[in-house]
Amino acid sequence: MTNFSKAAIIGGGVIGGGWAARFALNGIDVAVFDPDPEAPRKIGEVYANAERALRVLCVAPLPKPGTITYADSIAEAVEGAQWIQESVSEVLALKHKVFAEIQASAPDTLIGSSTSGFKPSELQEGAVNSGSILVAHPFNPVYLLPLVELVPSPATSPETLAFAEAVLPPLGMKPLVVRKEIDAHIADRFLEAVWREALWLVKDGIATTEEIDDAIRFGFGLRWAQMGLFETYRVAGGEAGMKHFMAQFGPCLTFPWTKLMDVPEFTDELVDLIAGQSDAQSGHHSIRELERIRDDNLVGILQALKVKPWGAGETLAAYEKQLREASFGGTVEHDASKPLPLHTARVLPEWVDYNGHMTEFRYLHVFGDATDAFLTNIGMDSAYMARERSIYTVESHIRHVQEVAAGKPLALETQLLGYDEKRVRLCHIMREAETGEVLATGEHMMLSVDTKAGRATPLEEPVPARLAAIWEGGHKDLPAPDFAGRAIREI
Amino acid sequence: MTNFSKAAIIGGGVIGGGWAARFALNGIDVAVFDPDPEAPRKIGEVYANAERALRVLCVAPLPKPGTITYADSIAEAVEGAQWIQESVSEVLALKHKVFAEIQASAPDTLIGSSTSGFKPSELQEGAVNSGSILVAHPFNPVYLLPLVELVPSPATSPETLAFAEAVLPPLGMKPLVVRKEIDAHIADRFLEAVWREALWLVKDGIATTEEIDDAIRFGFGLRWAQMGLFETYRVAGGEAGMKHFMAQFGPCLTFPWTKLMDVPEFTDELVDLIAGQSDAQSGHHSIRELERIRDDNLVGILQALKVKPWGAGETLAAYEKQLREASFGGTVEHDASKPLPLHTARVLPEWVDYNGHMTEFRYLHVFGDATDAFLTNIGMDSAYMARERSIYTVESHIRHVQEVAAGKPLALETQLLGYDEKRVRLCHIMREAETGEVLATGEHMMLSVDTKAGRATPLEEPVPARLAAIWEGGHKDLPAPDFAGRAIREI
Repeated sequence: MTNFSKAAIIGGGVIGGGWAARFALNGIDVAVFDPDPEAPRKIGEVYANAERALRVLCVAPLPKPGTITYADSIAEAVEGAQWIQESVSEVLALKHKVFAEIQASAPDTLIGSSTSGFKPSELQEGAVNSGSILVAHPFNPVYLLPLVELVPSPATSPETLAFAEAVLPPLGMKPLVVRKEIDAHIADRFLEAVWREALWLVKDGIATTEEIDDAIRFGFGLRWAQMGLFETYRVAGGEAGMKHFMAQFGPCLTFPWTKLMDVPEFTDELVDLIAGQSDAQSGHHSIRELERIRDDNLVGILQALKVKPWGAGETLAAYEKQLREASFGGTVEHDASKPLPLHTARVLPEWVDYNGHMTEFRYLHVFGDATDAFLTNIGMDSAYMARERSIYTVESHIRHVQEVAAGKPLALETQLLGYDEKRVRLCHIMREAETGEVLATGEHMMLSVDTKAGRATPLEEPVPARLAAIWEGGHKDLPAPDFAGRAIREI
Repeated sequence: MTNFSKAAIIGGGVIGGGWAARFALNGIDVAVFDPDPEAPRKIGEVYANAERALRVLCVAPLPKPGTITYADSIAEAVEGAQWIQESVSEVLALKHKVFAEIQASAPDTLIGSSTSGFKPSELQEGAVNSGSILVAHPFNPVYLLPLVELVPSPATSPETLAFAEAVLPPLGMKPLVVRKEIDAHIADRFLEAVWREALWLVKDGIATTEEIDDAIRFGFGLRWAQMGLFETYRVAGGEAGMKHFMAQFGPCLTFPWTKLMDVPEFTDELVDLIAGQSDAQSGHHSIRELERIRDDNLVGILQALKVKPWGAGETLAAYEKQLREASFGGTVEHDASKPLPLHTARVLPEWVDYNGHMTEFRYLHVFGDATDAFLTNIGMDSAYMARERSIYTVESHIRHVQEVAAGKPLALETQLLGYDEKRVRLCHIMREAETGEVLATGEHMMLSVDTKAGRATPLEEPVPARLAAIWEGGHKDLPAPDFAGRAIREI
């Protein structure tokens, strides 16, 4: 990875705060410059939301967070930073003034602008060093949505773009390089088109803000979370294919489906109409509540997309893999004087039954994953399996101690209860990660098998040596939990 | 509920087939008219996708499916139907012809049109009975996306609209009544605006189809699956509120962010450019694969939104609740002189691990379903649960005897091992349904709980009486299987 340890945030609103949280929660130190005395409070609130959401999102440990400090000047903020993110108001003259101040002390450091609409060449006008400036346009909430539109101008240096492309994926983000600069880049052109059309529908009394939102989120919004426009239409075209689809719907472009020529006038009446309808629709939730609902839903959607994995779920899977590898590094030596903390999990929405509790068989799902983590740790890796050897669970005894709700963080600890030439006996305790409360216990007998011959076979190195290290290292002296070796009692 | 037992589908493409599947899988008989000889095959494929997706989507049993038959004429198809759905090509003269033929035999039956663009008053031109005609515009895939835009004209009768509004929610759908008819209703106006803008971006070489899709699905598409445009912006506006947001972004409407005045010409070059980019983007997946990926993702997203529940997840929650309530109450008498054959299953493809064998925890999945079948049989139905009583599994002992491959038919038999005032102990044997080979065994302890107080409570009638009937009817004299009451052996 490129050397990236400090970011400067110029402008600490919702977007700047979101960048600050994304950076800091990934271990990057952040210096913020914002003359607003309220900035630390506002960023603190964004950070709290971000931390809450990311800890639920990732089935992998986050690194030690970076610090967030508040600088008295732009010069102080940018000192030592490898990435400077500008998120001030959408006023070109203000952005030029900020860039001049940044480049007075850090002319060669990457400056990403969060601008929704300006082209990078507009931002670069009058700059000391245009080469280090590009658009890095994120989407709110910056700490959860992966997309960053990276827009270089011809004057942006290839090194600047390459650095941006390298830095973002390890933060769980998805850089999308826009080939040619254009007003509003890509996504905001779509948003603007929909926004303009929606204002007409409200103004003309066709639909309220709530009805418009429902027309999106009960229909095509569900499609666009996973496939975009073209792939969705490719599927809709079915066997006949994309050309057929286009032949069918192409001509609609000339139908009077949209207000092509007009821009609704932004009168006080229209603003009041929309603000009033929005109050009626959402006013019973505070903004803070809506933010959390939004974040919880985004977490659930991203995790749902991770199953395949697909789209933003693929970004999440890669991010988690990297976090896990950074935290483990393959087989780690653990303190064998106590049970091994080898697995954590989070109760996914689809693991929950109609009572809102984790379904019975998902307990075994989690225990199975914990067993896999143990087996990986004792050397049953892909090389081991390539020799047509594996270790199967032949018996499980589960005690469901507590109901578990969706979203709960789970921490597993694993104790080796014994082993011989062909068998391994172990138990797991599943705890609520934050409170430590015991939720369930599992006891399992594993058998070493020759997968080709389909019969039991002795365990092979390095497994016996690793088992011995855990056993002799302390597990043989640990008392067996009271549930181990017990049968289900007769009634 | 309104009396609704038969639907007629006129036009059996992707949309008509989606309606047919949505209706039939909810127990409605369907008659299809489509002169295409391929229609039964095409609808069969849509139905197979729909069945697969709905069975995973719903944590509740679907009703016995309705039949799908193919009629030789419109008159035959519409006979006895309470809902007639027209999904023929977007050609107004063709739709008029179809409506005339329908109303020649069924002038008073509701006709919903799947039209994307026509206004209901246009559809009604020349109709025998305009009162029974309205737009009922669904979204693909019709069997998963809840939204249906219901658009009446002034001539549509209030009874027609009221019937449509009453019929759709029990099918898991979300009717959205559009206040005033307008070309393309609501959602397709947005889709058209985005489509037009996207065509420009491709034509001008700003972005490929894949980049455009990524700009949607890694960013605002994830927001729109849950909140629409206005609620998203309300949150983005933060503490300053909706008016502030509008003051900030309102003026952008006059910026050159979208191609306001122009419609891209639909040349062969543009069609080839887009079809070629789409092939490069998605061509490595067949349409069938993409459909299943889309459906799996939609299922995951809908289930994620059900946690809160929020938006389309709220629709799903209500749908499941209704399905569960409709399913209970069917206790069957069984021969209690032997173990009870209460459950069968088939190993689904997604139950299988990378070795091609049923994953460990799916054994408990099947045993859990067998336990549910037993509990339903002894009277734990929705009425029982409505009294805040339930029966939870507190302990399970599973023996994995054989590997099980995808597609295997499973037959379960269940033996009552004992019970007392608060507890039930039972075991299941899982066999290969055809050979009778034992694949796994399960022993389970169940506890009667007060779900409100969260503690054990005595079983309530009719459960104790049903248990007694099975016990005294013969299970008390059955020998306990050798695995029952055993612990996992120490090594």
